[in-house]
Amino acid sequence: MSVLPATERVLLGPGPSLMAPRVMRALGAPMLSHLDPDFVPLMDDVRHGLRRLFRADEQAFALAVSGTGTSGMETAVANTVREGSRVVSVVTGYFGDRLAQMCERYGARLRRVDVEWGRACDPEALRRVLKEEGADVVTFVHAETSTGVRNDAAALAAVAREHGALTIADMVTSLGGHPVEVEQWGIDVAYSCTQKCIGAPSGLAPVVVSGAAKSRVMAGDAPRCRSFYLDLRLLEDYWVNRKYHHTMSASLIYALREALLMIDEETQDARWARHQRHHQAFAAGLSAMGLSLLPPADERLWTLNAIRVPDGIDEAAVRRTLLQRFNIEIGAGLGPLAGKIWRVGLMGAGSTPQSVVLLLGALDAALAAQGRAVAPGAGVAAASAALA
Amino acid sequence: MSVLPATERVLLGPGPSLMAPRVMRALGAPMLSHLDPDFVPLMDDVRHGLRRLFRADEQAFALAVSGTGTSGMETAVANTVREGSRVVSVVTGYFGDRLAQMCERYGARLRRVDVEWGRACDPEALRRVLKEEGADVVTFVHAETSTGVRNDAAALAAVAREHGALTIADMVTSLGGHPVEVEQWGIDVAYSCTQKCIGAPSGLAPVVVSGAAKSRVMAGDAPRCRSFYLDLRLLEDYWVNRKYHHTMSASLIYALREALLMIDEETQDARWARHQRHHQAFAAGLSAMGLSLLPPADERLWTLNAIRVPDGIDEAAVRRTLLQRFNIEIGAGLGPLAGKIWRVGLMGAGSTPQSVVLLLGALDAALAAQGRAVAPGAGVAAASAALA
Repeated sequence: MSVLPATERVLLGPGPSLMAPRVMRALGAPMLSHLDPDFVPLMDDVRHGLRRLFRADEQAFALAVSGTGTSGMETAVANTVREGSRVVSVVTGYFGDRLAQMCERYGARLRRVDVEWGRACDPEALRRVLKEEGADVVTFVHAETSTGVRNDAAALAAVAREHGALTIADMVTSLGGHPVEVEQWGIDVAYSCTQKCIGAPSGLAPVVVSGAAKSRVMAGDAPRCRSFYLDLRLLEDYWVNRKYHHTMSASLIYALREALLMIDEETQDARWARHQRHHQAFAAGLSAMGLSLLPPADERLWTLNAIRVPDGIDEAAVRRTLLQRFNIEIGAGLGPLAGKIWRVGLMGAGSTPQSVVLLLGALDAALAAQGRAVAPGAGVAAASAALA
Repeated sequence: MSVLPATERVLLGPGPSLMAPRVMRALGAPMLSHLDPDFVPLMDDVRHGLRRLFRADEQAFALAVSGTGTSGMETAVANTVREGSRVVSVVTGYFGDRLAQMCERYGARLRRVDVEWGRACDPEALRRVLKEEGADVVTFVHAETSTGVRNDAAALAAVAREHGALTIADMVTSLGGHPVEVEQWGIDVAYSCTQKCIGAPSGLAPVVVSGAAKSRVMAGDAPRCRSFYLDLRLLEDYWVNRKYHHTMSASLIYALREALLMIDEETQDARWARHQRHHQAFAAGLSAMGLSLLPPADERLWTLNAIRVPDGIDEAAVRRTLLQRFNIEIGAGLGPLAGKIWRVGLMGAGSTPQSVVLLLGALDAALAAQGRAVAPGAGVAAASAALA
């Protein structure tokens, strides 16, 4: 017999992350229809709030697509990649690979720049490929959820711009947790999700098209998007001109809007600093416990920590102990990293001193249960010192 | 300054419809991640519940796509229509037309069977076209939300089958309110939405592929679906084999599951009878008020009533009065029917004696405000008599 969850799972995996009670309450506000005069201003709040969060220019078009982050990825691809488009995809992990696959589905002639999983892409590697054959579109992942790596989005976008290519950037695990500067970095199309650093339920995908890219992507004479559901021109007609396109989930919009209001109240700078602080404390704690992170220090995300599983430890058993004994969720590795790493998200409402101390303490216990009890409490002590 | 809604709008438009308090409470249950061991059985409840609601065979694959009803439509098209597919689209209104447009975007060589808006399609008209040129896929809308018309899905599907064509049926405004018999009628692919007769928030799209159609649509050697997000093979891998595809919105799944449990408790037969009863009472009330419905009596939906706007009445002003004075939403006409009809939904938790009496009374008042007060109270009296 299945039942709805009776307790709050402590969500410290790669997402969904913990949500503020305010956001949960907003989710349950009375239903309005998708073009109700009282709903339309809430859509405007979301649209403008997302544009500010992406730090896109005033002419940019930001919206929330009615689907999960993967629908945001497909929106970016479906509106820029045509049969025969030359696409160069930087692949630094599972989601870079998915983005490349999607471009192929939409007809791209694809060239990949593959990078060892766990490392960022050297912009020179991209430059070499672009010098050889150019590209219409360059894709990369800013914050690679599968490896905990942050790519230098500004540098990659600059290289793409040198060669006149449109840039698609995946910001699923950075938006709301790391500095993101769509305008300053010259990103053309970016997308994200709602259930990680923004701190809302999943089900909507923030997408932005820069003012400069709009004429290439969304103009009347640009090639037609194959998808109807993800067609940015139809979506702009809905979000801006109130022309019916689909029945947006008011509940999800309420929750996303509330989460965006909370970001405005905290300020973006303070929020980024908070994510950095708790990541650093967590990393200090791991180090004191003899655990290490996969990426080198200057390529690490603050939002997603990829921890190497020590030799002799059963990685699935550790996750099971955390779940069953402490009601804590963390993530496993994907693809070639399955069994080799744990993925810990400290994102949105989950990036707190409590999360850091709780998880380090629980990890201590889970590792001790497998006979690996080196200096118990050392991790918590080191993290507490870093937080002080 | 925008704010979340403070009152419950009485949702009697074409959707979203009113929701049971139980469903709203389920929406706010604690978050679980998309592959949590406690979440997986809830997905199974939804999958099996939807298969039963569609009345599909035991080998059929039913799921909820993470998007609105329009994403369900696109899922059906993206997985069946290829470049050069011969598609015959029955167009009896706005949504039949949208389905035809979508097939064209996916590369169909399209032949339309256009029918006057407000009437059902004569199966002979479809047969004539199929005899002339055959088809790989036939599309039609069972319950046309834009006109209040019910097409004879069983007869249309039988004609398509005579010619070996796959059938796509839009059941957005019938599933959960009208008898739907995917297996018995021989429908291959059908889709719906959650926010109408099922009585959950929007944001998920029920889709079913019959057991017989699975081998043609989802087999390993069937042509690859252009869309990654809507690829039914990847979605089956997620729903059945638990292979990560996207981060489903647990909140929406909780609410949909609760709504499906309520349908099981009520029983499908009782639910259909309830929708029929309240439609008939409402129609009797309208008739007593001198108002008429657009479709002929034997082509009418029970779930969506398309009321002709009487001469000399300002249709938008009536909707405004209902909204501002009584907090009631009804819908306007779409496309060529804009300004000519009102659309009243009596769906899901909104199909009640209260809705019927409240709306007839409020309509009396709104029409009287424009000087048209023929026999005030006659509508409510006639509806009450029909309900007795």
